Amino acid sequence: MSDRLFSQSTGMFIAETHTDAVTWHFSVDRFLVEGHTQFQQYQIVEMPTFGKTLFLDYKIQSSLLDEYVYHESMVQPAMTTHPNPKKVLVCGGGEGATLWQALQHNTVEHCDMVDLDEELVDMVKVHMKEWHHDCFDDPRANLVHKDARKWVEDHKGANYDVILSDLPGPIEGGPALYLYTKEYFQRVAEALSDDGVFVLQSGACNETYPYCFAAVHETLDSLKEQFPYVRGYYGLVTTFQMPWGFILASKKHDPLELTPELIAQRLAERGVTTNRYYTPRFHSAMFTLPEYMLRAIKQHGRILTDAEPFLWEA
Amino acid sequence: MSDRLFSQSTGMFIAETHTDAVTWHFSVDRFLVEGHTQFQQYQIVEMPTFGKTLFLDYKIQSSLLDEYVYHESMVQPAMTTHPNPKKVLVCGGGEGATLWQALQHNTVEHCDMVDLDEELVDMVKVHMKEWHHDCFDDPRANLVHKDARKWVEDHKGANYDVILSDLPGPIEGGPALYLYTKEYFQRVAEALSDDGVFVLQSGACNETYPYCFAAVHETLDSLKEQFPYVRGYYGLVTTFQMPWGFILASKKHDPLELTPELIAQRLAERGVTTNRYYTPRFHSAMFTLPEYMLRAIKQHGRILTDAEPFLWEA
Amino acid sequence: MSDRLFSQSTGMFIAETHTDAVTWHFSVDRFLVEGHTQFQQYQIVEMPTFGKTLFLDYKIQSSLLDEYVYHESMVQPAMTTHPNPKKVLVCGGGEGATLWQALQHNTVEHCDMVDLDEELVDMVKVHMKEWHHDCFDDPRANLVHKDARKWVEDHKGANYDVILSDLPGPIEGGPALYLYTKEYFQRVAEALSDDGVFVLQSGACNETYPYCFAAVHETLDSLKEQFPYVRGYYGLVTTFQMPWGFILASKKHDPLELTPELIAQRLAERGVTTNRYYTPRFHSAMFTLPEYMLRAIKQHGRILTDAEPFLWEA
Amino acid sequence: MSDRLFSQSTGMFIAETHTDAVTWHFSVDRFLVEGHTQFQQYQIVEMPTFGKTLFLDYKIQSSLLDEYVYHESMVQPAMTTHPNPKKVLVCGGGEGATLWQALQHNTVEHCDMVDLDEELVDMVKVHMKEWHHDCFDDPRANLVHKDARKWVEDHKGANYDVILSDLPGPIEGGPALYLYTKEYFQRVAEALSDDGVFVLQSGACNETYPYCFAAVHETLDSLKEQFPYVRGYYGLVTTFQMPWGFILASKKHDPLELTPELIAQRLAERGVTTNRYYTPRFHSAMFTLPEYMLRAIKQHGRILTDAEPFLWEA
Repeated sequence: MSDRLFSQSTGMFIAETHTDAVTWHFSVDRFLVEGHTQFQQYQIVEMPTFGKTLFLDYKIQSSLLDEYVYHESMVQPAMTTHPNPKKVLVCGGGEGATLWQALQHNTVEHCDMVDLDEELVDMVKVHMKEWHHDCFDDPRANLVHKDARKWVEDHKGANYDVILSDLPGPIEGGPALYLYTKEYFQRVAEALSDDGVFVLQSGACNETYPYCFAAVHETLDSLKEQFPYVRGYYGLVTTFQMPWGFILASKKHDPLELTPELIAQRLAERGVTTNRYYTPRFHSAMFTLPEYMLRAIKQHGRILTDAEPFLWEA
Repeated sequence: MSDRLFSQSTGMFIAETHTDAVTWHFSVDRFLVEGHTQFQQYQIVEMPTFGKTLFLDYKIQSSLLDEYVYHESMVQPAMTTHPNPKKVLVCGGGEGATLWQALQHNTVEHCDMVDLDEELVDMVKVHMKEWHHDCFDDPRANLVHKDARKWVEDHKGANYDVILSDLPGPIEGGPALYLYTKEYFQRVAEALSDDGVFVLQSGACNETYPYCFAAVHETLDSLKEQFPYVRGYYGLVTTFQMPWGFILASKKHDPLELTPELIAQRLAERGVTTNRYYTPRFHSAMFTLPEYMLRAIKQHGRILTDAEPFLWEA
Repeated sequence: MSDRLFSQSTGMFIAETHTDAVTWHFSVDRFLVEGHTQFQQYQIVEMPTFGKTLFLDYKIQSSLLDEYVYHESMVQPAMTTHPNPKKVLVCGGGEGATLWQALQHNTVEHCDMVDLDEELVDMVKVHMKEWHHDCFDDPRANLVHKDARKWVEDHKGANYDVILSDLPGPIEGGPALYLYTKEYFQRVAEALSDDGVFVLQSGACNETYPYCFAAVHETLDSLKEQFPYVRGYYGLVTTFQMPWGFILASKKHDPLELTPELIAQRLAERGVTTNRYYTPRFHSAMFTLPEYMLRAIKQHGRILTDAEPFLWEA
Repeated sequence: MSDRLFSQSTGMFIAETHTDAVTWHFSVDRFLVEGHTQFQQYQIVEMPTFGKTLFLDYKIQSSLLDEYVYHESMVQPAMTTHPNPKKVLVCGGGEGATLWQALQHNTVEHCDMVDLDEELVDMVKVHMKEWHHDCFDDPRANLVHKDARKWVEDHKGANYDVILSDLPGPIEGGPALYLYTKEYFQRVAEALSDDGVFVLQSGACNETYPYCFAAVHETLDSLKEQFPYVRGYYGLVTTFQMPWGFILASKKHDPLELTPELIAQRLAERGVTTNRYYTPRFHSAMFTLPEYMLRAIKQHGRILTDAEPFLWEA
């Protein structure tokens, strides 16, 4: 019986330790590009089933199989929630797909993308066109290589309609640790317009690692004055092998009030024809968090501050 | 830079090849029970984070971390959809948790559980009490070790209100291959009461392996006369590292018509207090399939028959 | 082309990190016994090709495939070098095979085995008979569960003819760290008879990890007065996936002077009929170290002391 | 206790299944070159400890750590056994190190290297200079890309003094299957001079896979008329994680008759100063096979023919 079931591995793999319970061994057909920047190591590989895939610091980032699920989840709910997004800020978003998603809305007149890692984006421009479709050349796009927190602090009163935070998790010693704190979120509020919408990727939305999501949710929830509407949601990212969480914080517009009809109307008016995951039908299901996340917010939520930021083990 | 990020493995692992893209290496703290029956190999292990966990043929089955997510998803929507489930049939369900979930509804007067693998269930009785809570001793429960298809064929007119199919996938050469075919589903309809509800676990609900779900959905959809309502849904099973799909086929009651209020009322009336995942609030989100599954049903759906059953590679 | 060569793993494995270059994934058919003592974790497993195999702290210890290679290498050269070994001491040697090898020489009148880990030896008695052949019951054998260093210090003048040190490597924090130092080796000399022979397993004899061997060799070489003859040798242990090193230190008899004829004569006279690896023909090849070990002794040799013992990373 | 010992993997690996008992996961710091030729896939990677390393079809071939052990073992015993090697043939030997080793003997006037895979050698020329030291440019070297068997058949009477067969193992469907048969060895004898020496790499020299070595040994041994002296030997190749076997077949000169003094004299006269593994002192130890190989030759030896060649599972 053993003979039929048992098999051993041969070939190239990238291993990623997820939690202490599971390590993923990703099969690699070919290593396409490999290197490191000042901030991180990267590999672009060709994988079976997933196709072209980006790894940063040996963590899977996105694959052609379903980068659209992650990036539509990252961008479309916030853009659609705002009735007329003209000025947009992308924090991070190195693959360029977040920028590309935002630019699908023809209401957008200007979109700043602030990503610290110039070397990575330069590499992405050459090797990941399927993600960004050369949208860096769009006249509405403005790519800047600076620290996102510094940029936000320097743009008080800039009246962004939507700010999209597509940054690495708040890992100790990592560059984004202070981009998940109460103080920073206050600066975000000041850089937004009066009816601005903020959204950030917030880590796993599963039962093994809900801690980051819970803490960020609690932190934003403590800023009731700036953000009366704090709404968690998730996308089913096959590449990540788990639902992935996002938190939307809004000054005036509540995503829960959007009807399928209104969403369909806005997408149509703005010429958005590329959505394959975020659809009018599916919007409200995304915002319906599973019970275990509601429990996690209660049990593990805490207010992150510059003095006591989140410490996510790498 | 490499030094900080790189690590190698030491310890005990069970490896499971998911698709050609990913192999999971599950960390094992201790092997608790191990053996094989006439039909399959099993291990019960203690894992970090997941706790006690069952593997069958080196495939992860359920862990204490979230077996409730799988088993509530398996049982509760169908039980709740039926207005008064008295007579229930569980096909498979070796861990006993499916039976236990069904028995939570105090409307149930009799529940047959038909699982082929007596050796496995005997082992489960001793070693997996956290799953079944000794519910095999419930006077309403009747455990039988027979082939489920044969049982269903022999029980035409038995008037089951709910039939819960918690069986292995339709693997070539496996014991459940012919429990996912049109002919079998017709026999199921004949064993159900006039307003009976049938549900079966139907495989992955993610973008790498939607084929089984799509085929089973199409097959049930072809039986409009027997099952006017065919509704796919999914549960977020962290242990499986993916959303898991189920398909509910109903003669008269449509789960999409259940309001949160009605669900809450039914659960309360029936004394169901154990749900931690399936809640009135969450019901409709579960039945909202992601776009990629709707596309998969269209693209990969086909009618499974005894002559051409589904062939799922092990 | 990729399809034919690529394969993924399914099944049970014990992973052992060897150096930073290689991790071994050992296939496990069945876990036979598992547990831990006060000092270490153990598993006895059934492996393909290797057969029954012992792991301690997730490091492979010996398998039925070739435990004889390790244990004959551990014992036979020293026993054969001594012209008339009557009184023997085994330090460590938990599997009992070292004791068994020594008792093959019918000159032996008494053999103490001093192993700290009583729980492990109790387990071994039940589950590893293929290793020890119940030789603990031999009237010449005396099993004691004490610290080997303490035992040696307490047995000054005990006139052991041969002392066989089959201990774990000198790992930081491990129980054997101070059983590889100059001070201890001086105590060993005092417990030996005037023509006594001492041998100890001394770690890998390959090019990736010659450090332990080199340091132990240098340390014994610094005790010219006590041990005029210090001779390194190795055994080809397939289970360890590398040649394994031993160092023999002798007061009077030089193993390099043994001819094949003399070895054959001694083994015959003493009734030793069980050797399958250590043979008269092969003796001198074992004592011919490869050049890289000679270089390693020069480059990495240093004198280990109680103040500055060897620190072997686990 | 578990916490301290247990670790999981993160990073890049090449996995190689050795036997059904062990899979090696080689750590990769960087992928330097990757591609495939008409015949095989290749990767050159940077590994910890091993340094630059070549893989062919996901099997480790040689690393900078100890390629000298393999290549000196491959070449130096045969070259030194012949009293005056002027004309040499290398079959295979893609890395160029076998050619380089042969050219160290200043007696050599001409050396043909016949390797089928031109694309691989072209890649090697650029990326593996540490192996071949640009010796392809040596005026005595003649590189040809043809089938080695065809070349040998076409060179009857060519009077090669030494033929060095550094070819892949006789894998079913592989290009070298018929370069390990009695018929081929007869052709080799015809291409050699009257006192010619033939040597071929012959696979693992350990207890898990002695089958290839045993069969080749038996096959050559059956050609007593052509090769009165058939001598197996091995090198301790750390990169291969096992002793590696070679078989030398000689018409007139017996390597076992070489004394250390004669070896030293020949190497000195011929200006060979590069040996780090093959030394006068070590020669005879290399030719002393362990008992398990002698047993394997008896038990598993068989005569390989074109009709029934060796079938080595890949």
